[in-house]
Amino acid sequence: MRNRFDRQLLELNNELIQMGSLIEQAIEMGISALVKQDVEKAEQAIKFDVEVDEQEKTIEALCMKLLLQQQPVAKDLRLISAALKMITDMERIGDHAADISEMTILMADSDYEKSAINMEVIKEMAKETTDMVIKSVDAFVNKDLELARWVINRDDVVDDLFDSFRKELIQKINENVKNGEMATDMLMVAKYFERIGDHATNIAEWVIYSITGKHEDE
Amino acid sequence: MRNRFDRQLLELNNELIQMGSLIEQAIEMGISALVKQDVEKAEQAIKFDVEVDEQEKTIEALCMKLLLQQQPVAKDLRLISAALKMITDMERIGDHAADISEMTILMADSDYEKSAINMEVIKEMAKETTDMVIKSVDAFVNKDLELARWVINRDDVVDDLFDSFRKELIQKINENVKNGEMATDMLMVAKYFERIGDHATNIAEWVIYSITGKHEDE
Repeated sequence: MRNRFDRQLLELNNELIQMGSLIEQAIEMGISALVKQDVEKAEQAIKFDVEVDEQEKTIEALCMKLLLQQQPVAKDLRLISAALKMITDMERIGDHAADISEMTILMADSDYEKSAINMEVIKEMAKETTDMVIKSVDAFVNKDLELARWVINRDDVVDDLFDSFRKELIQKINENVKNGEMATDMLMVAKYFERIGDHATNIAEWVIYSITGKHEDE
Repeated sequence: MRNRFDRQLLELNNELIQMGSLIEQAIEMGISALVKQDVEKAEQAIKFDVEVDEQEKTIEALCMKLLLQQQPVAKDLRLISAALKMITDMERIGDHAADISEMTILMADSDYEKSAINMEVIKEMAKETTDMVIKSVDAFVNKDLELARWVINRDDVVDDLFDSFRKELIQKINENVKNGEMATDMLMVAKYFERIGDHATNIAEWVIYSITGKHEDE
């Protein structure tokens, strides 16, 4: 009985890794579409959200199976309920990745000069947030408290990137009102990445709960 | 058998109306918290999102029951699959209502003068989008094609409100860089309402599909 439970926990880990990988691909394809202003690619990236949603349902069903069939002990209950919470945040990250690609499609319709946009901060935000998502799932799988704490602290980097980018964009609008549309579009993209960082932080907090049974507020 | 199916369809309608009402309350409490800059109320408003999510699951389970037990005919299948799609958009609306209240909480931490913010356009957007959500659910329940089309057309009003508000905020930043933080925060709030309008439009499109079996692109 216990062996079967362990096997299903292993399956849960693998499904979570798979969900993390889908999110990674969605963000990577989304940022590539944004940088190249490639509408077709943005539409492809949005389709990942459907897969992320389906993966959430798969994991939810697996968690329910674990809860109902195995009469888990407190430690297992914590693990499974943490996984259920984690996938809610992962699903929201998938939504925001799709939001970013929808901004790319919207931007294609606007007539400002796209080549003038500084994409460096956005690329940096994409890299940082992807890293946070992957590492938070790793931390769950390997019960790695230190790694979970690293993810939570890393959110400051994302927040700082957002704040400095926002200042830069405000400056651009202040210099010339004609930069307004471009700057506010890019600000919205940055905001979605900032929210992705928040959700990755939530995931890491659930990982800590799954290991220690306590919530840590950083 | 058919009677039981009809009874369950009636139940589905009532649950959808209930979900619409939860969204209405979340938006109304959220806008009131924003206007009054009331953090406690914003936190209360966020809790509606949990209820919206639970209501989505209740309806999902009901739809599954309808699909599996009743061997529905094509027309019923269309109705049920439309309902399943509608609740996905309604769930996203709940997310955005929570996003708005999270912005209220975030704004409380910033040190710009809140009393200077013009809330009129935001209040208008809240009113229009709430109306769209409620009417799209009504259109489903009453199989009212005209009302569904009205909702889809109404999204232009929301988009126009967003565009003009964005211009106003860009102007404010251009006048004085010190308005930047306030203006970009408010822009994000407006963007969430604009997205709520998009999702309400999606709902209305699913209503049309449930009645005619066809997708209308407006």
